[in-house]
Amino acid sequence: MYYTSNCSFNFSPNTLLPKMLMNRISCTLKNDIVRSIGHCTEVPRNVNMEKLQHGYLFPEIERRELLHLKKYPHANVIDLGIGDTTKPLPEIVTSSMVDFVHGLSTAEGYKGYGPEQGEKAMRKAIADAFYKDLGIKPSEVFVSDGAQCDISRLQLLMGPNLKIAVQDPSFPAYIDSSVIIGQAGKFVDRAGKYENIEYLTCRPQTDFFPDLQTTSRPQLIFFCSPNNPTGHAATRKQLEQLVNFAKVNGSIIIFDAAYSAYITDDSPKSIFEISGAREVAIEVSSFSKFAGFTGVRLGWTVVPEELLYSNGFPVLHDFNRIMCTCFNGASRIAQAGGLACLSPEGLNALQSLVDYYMENARILVNALTSLGLIVYGGKNAPYVWVHFPGSNSWNVFAEVLEKTHIITVPGSGFGPGGEGYIRISAFGQRDSIIEASKRLKNLLYQKEL
Amino acid sequence: MYYTSNCSFNFSPNTLLPKMLMNRISCTLKNDIVRSIGHCTEVPRNVNMEKLQHGYLFPEIERRELLHLKKYPHANVIDLGIGDTTKPLPEIVTSSMVDFVHGLSTAEGYKGYGPEQGEKAMRKAIADAFYKDLGIKPSEVFVSDGAQCDISRLQLLMGPNLKIAVQDPSFPAYIDSSVIIGQAGKFVDRAGKYENIEYLTCRPQTDFFPDLQTTSRPQLIFFCSPNNPTGHAATRKQLEQLVNFAKVNGSIIIFDAAYSAYITDDSPKSIFEISGAREVAIEVSSFSKFAGFTGVRLGWTVVPEELLYSNGFPVLHDFNRIMCTCFNGASRIAQAGGLACLSPEGLNALQSLVDYYMENARILVNALTSLGLIVYGGKNAPYVWVHFPGSNSWNVFAEVLEKTHIITVPGSGFGPGGEGYIRISAFGQRDSIIEASKRLKNLLYQKEL
Repeated sequence: MYYTSNCSFNFSPNTLLPKMLMNRISCTLKNDIVRSIGHCTEVPRNVNMEKLQHGYLFPEIERRELLHLKKYPHANVIDLGIGDTTKPLPEIVTSSMVDFVHGLSTAEGYKGYGPEQGEKAMRKAIADAFYKDLGIKPSEVFVSDGAQCDISRLQLLMGPNLKIAVQDPSFPAYIDSSVIIGQAGKFVDRAGKYENIEYLTCRPQTDFFPDLQTTSRPQLIFFCSPNNPTGHAATRKQLEQLVNFAKVNGSIIIFDAAYSAYITDDSPKSIFEISGAREVAIEVSSFSKFAGFTGVRLGWTVVPEELLYSNGFPVLHDFNRIMCTCFNGASRIAQAGGLACLSPEGLNALQSLVDYYMENARILVNALTSLGLIVYGGKNAPYVWVHFPGSNSWNVFAEVLEKTHIITVPGSGFGPGGEGYIRISAFGQRDSIIEASKRLKNLLYQKEL
Repeated sequence: MYYTSNCSFNFSPNTLLPKMLMNRISCTLKNDIVRSIGHCTEVPRNVNMEKLQHGYLFPEIERRELLHLKKYPHANVIDLGIGDTTKPLPEIVTSSMVDFVHGLSTAEGYKGYGPEQGEKAMRKAIADAFYKDLGIKPSEVFVSDGAQCDISRLQLLMGPNLKIAVQDPSFPAYIDSSVIIGQAGKFVDRAGKYENIEYLTCRPQTDFFPDLQTTSRPQLIFFCSPNNPTGHAATRKQLEQLVNFAKVNGSIIIFDAAYSAYITDDSPKSIFEISGAREVAIEVSSFSKFAGFTGVRLGWTVVPEELLYSNGFPVLHDFNRIMCTCFNGASRIAQAGGLACLSPEGLNALQSLVDYYMENARILVNALTSLGLIVYGGKNAPYVWVHFPGSNSWNVFAEVLEKTHIITVPGSGFGPGGEGYIRISAFGQRDSIIEASKRLKNLLYQKEL
């Protein structure tokens, strides 16, 4: 019995519980769970929550980092794991937020609730800055506290009875939120997949694009470009195929463009650059990576008016209701900062942030390529996707951490299609990136000896 | 046909669509919906969304306010509707946020992602400030962007298969989020209720407490104290009965304490003041009303370790997973402000905000009582709950708006138990409150002539 309670929870050590104990909560509760004396209510655990396989990826990495620091308390750990921004915000952005906050302590400048959908000026600024010639209206833009939060709200919107497809590998929140809302079905251990989710394999051999010929007819397609983790930005031709596929099959694409600011070639930065996308796609995006707002929290979702359910009802209408009921508006301080980001000076200042991280990516790509490794990404996204054919991702992760004190992300954390890869984030400070490149070179040089 | 599309959406004007058109979305889209040319995907509309009866209450009020302003463009409208704070934030709170924001533009002060559960210091400060002798650990406190958002996340946590009970009247987000997640069942027009939700009638006759003798065995009980809209703070004895009821029936209480700072008598400010509550209750709360953070966005939820599902699994563990997957942390700027709120000087300064709004409430209560109206609330909450026996809430709302240009909230918007009442918010500026009291006196005086 793991719980000193009067309940029937008695997973044996080699079944579910230890796995659960290994995950995020163990960071804060450690062994307390096992020791806790509790009271069993008659509320059954949500069967959907029960289906989640293991801790959310990044908390698990954090846990391993903590263990590593216990083992090597003096190690200079370089974190190139979670894609967390490190460069200070441009002065123009912070001073706009400072002015707003100062205002909050005055009778004239105080502001209470804002519109749940975001301030009018903010919705318009996003439409103008990112969708200028694409016909997106401010009323189609919903301002939020970030793309990951919007993904869950989109799942709430869509409900449990849909068949979804995701790129494999991809950002784990698509699948985890799908499991939570109840779309995923059983987890099939052998395959490492949920039975009701269609995994769209995206490998280098097919330019990281799924084989749509063999894809069934999913109702929702989560598609991230530039892709996290592979760093691949879908080409115009690929996205045209995707939009056409959705149109023919009656699917809705949920397009995650959180990294679009990093695109350097002529790959589309928005799904709405593709003709017909307004009728089949929702776009989610964020200030997190584009503007260093990971801690400030600001994002948005675009739902075009033309996007209708099978009965003709506008999706926008229901999403609006979700935002009004399950959300209460993004922080107005963050929105004041977001407005400054989208001013001409703001956009200019942010471009140098983007350039800085992309130079980091080039340094990492060059270092790894010079060692003969198979390296993807780093051109249209600040993620480097390194192939170790035949290796287990967590083993590579563990070896890199043990021998170089560098945190990466095991590719298999992004789905079975990521097995054999690790993702390295270029969102670090330049000196850390240079130091990390050196350490990786040394490690691989030693291995060759 | 309402949609110029190739789909089968053809509600006739007197069925669902006009109601839907009347609701929130009409503020932004107006007639555009009707004219939109769209594409029907093969994605069915979420049946849960379909069950939502009408626009979320406050957007509907906003819509009526806009219509009123069209009719009377020069009217000096006083908004005592949505409980929106109006007083500037204390200097100590804004200067703490300003310092944090300034830091974001420096290499030393920049911060990226924070923990999804909130900063350690913030969790500890909340535990210390609100649960000092109640044994709540920082690891049981989850910092969020507000109570309304947490209510939806708690619904995601609990899932669709539970039987819930709500106070009637109560804050509409409990029921609406329950409908969205799929717990509510069909709406029964005649009763004005969802068939699977148990409405716990809370009337003055029973001191705003439900008759637990006739209550079935709900798995979740949403309970708000001080109650929004009635302003009634449950007494210690009432909460002891509630906790005991939950314990006996195996229920989980979701206790909304968003207005607890306004309690002036010895009613409990937290459910955790009641012995045994740690084993049956979750508490949701917020900086919105307590600190004027409606636009800043900060709240929290407490999930005690002892609270277990029927299989013995800790609820905290799953909620943690929800926060990590569906949320990405509250804005760190808001958290910097929240920390300052909970310093001794901050708490002191905020007490005068609370006192100010409560003095407003007293002015309103006195004015209305002097007219012989039946008035509740205003003692432990900044809401005044006025009874117009036999009248229709929306009619009273409309008459008050038409004749005094004051926005209130029709009681029936909070559930069938609110019919015949209106709620008046005391969160205004003093001069508006005095002016509103005068206008109401005049209106009622004229009516008597």
